[in-house]
Amino acid sequence: MAIILKEKTADDDILMPPVNFSMVEDGIYRSGLPQPSNFSFLKTLNLRCIIYLCPEPYPEENLKFLEANNIRLFQFGIEGKTEPTVSLLKDAIMDALKILVDVRNHPVLIHCKRGKHRTGCLVGCLRKLQNWCLASVFEEYQRFAGVKSRETDKKFIESFDVLSLRHCLYSIIYRYHGYGSKKRRLLYKEDNVQKPQMTSV
Amino acid sequence: MAIILKEKTADDDILMPPVNFSMVEDGIYRSGLPQPSNFSFLKTLNLRCIIYLCPEPYPEENLKFLEANNIRLFQFGIEGKTEPTVSLLKDAIMDALKILVDVRNHPVLIHCKRGKHRTGCLVGCLRKLQNWCLASVFEEYQRFAGVKSRETDKKFIESFDVLSLRHCLYSIIYRYHGYGSKKRRLLYKEDNVQKPQMTSV
Repeated sequence: MAIILKEKTADDDILMPPVNFSMVEDGIYRSGLPQPSNFSFLKTLNLRCIIYLCPEPYPEENLKFLEANNIRLFQFGIEGKTEPTVSLLKDAIMDALKILVDVRNHPVLIHCKRGKHRTGCLVGCLRKLQNWCLASVFEEYQRFAGVKSRETDKKFIESFDVLSLRHCLYSIIYRYHGYGSKKRRLLYKEDNVQKPQMTSV
Repeated sequence: MAIILKEKTADDDILMPPVNFSMVEDGIYRSGLPQPSNFSFLKTLNLRCIIYLCPEPYPEENLKFLEANNIRLFQFGIEGKTEPTVSLLKDAIMDALKILVDVRNHPVLIHCKRGKHRTGCLVGCLRKLQNWCLASVFEEYQRFAGVKSRETDKKFIESFDVLSLRHCLYSIIYRYHGYGSKKRRLLYKEDNVQKPQMTSV
């Protein structure tokens, strides 16, 4: 057994995760828009990338945090309030999904504004790719959306075709590593996947 | 970059996570009581242990699944409906927490019956140990408890003293490993911690 002590958490070093924060998978997190008060928490995640799902420019303070911590930004602008055209939404989610399943981008944080609808759609489509049954996908969506749950989002997730992406992938695989613990990893073979559009700082 | 493809997920291999399932941390999951229909999903987690928080005997079918997959059971019987004596609850949660933060037990699934109250209390106390602010701890508790949220649970979490455990620990540390991704790990130095009571199959 390996026990290595690297960093001590001081008793008074209180951490504040962003609203609606949660771990999705090994190396994948979700939340609402991080505020400066969340930055010290975000640092503990050692993020490599952020997938930002809003069309609005990324806040200046957040950009500075990303630059200071060498975090890459992928932006996929999906309208929040009005219902986006399904085909546009489908393209954006598909592009985001390709970034998301590439472990070279991990640890990655997905966020929109509140971490409910756009983030919920992307995570829902990831779960379909992972072969989760729809009832469980919706349960997870609902947990974050709460009373703001949208039928249009659920219909979108249900109709989203992951086969086309899966056929681009070698596989969703389980990779075992670590000292004793067996851990799952999502990987994809880059050469077989069409390069997604990306915006980065 | 390491890409290793080990296992293919068949298109028709639909997975059904247990109710209220979620990842908590690297190697830590939470849910309601798993049903046999959830076993194929649970297999993908490569669990080493289960922390079961109910006083009722573990279901026979679940015991068989654990035996077949070499998963150890730690049971801490906390009454569900009636409000347990706070001192008893405190002892049970403290003992469960010691099992939980020991990475030798990872990957571990915490569950009670519905994954709301008892599981919510244990995860809430883990978050305090991780120095999360109370507002975020409660937000997470609420997400899983929904309309069944209990003020007594929140008060318990708020009053739970993690200092005594923290003083037993060398530290909560961040351990970096993996191919490129930096990952966090909770560890404790076994010799400094009083051996918890445990029940195992």
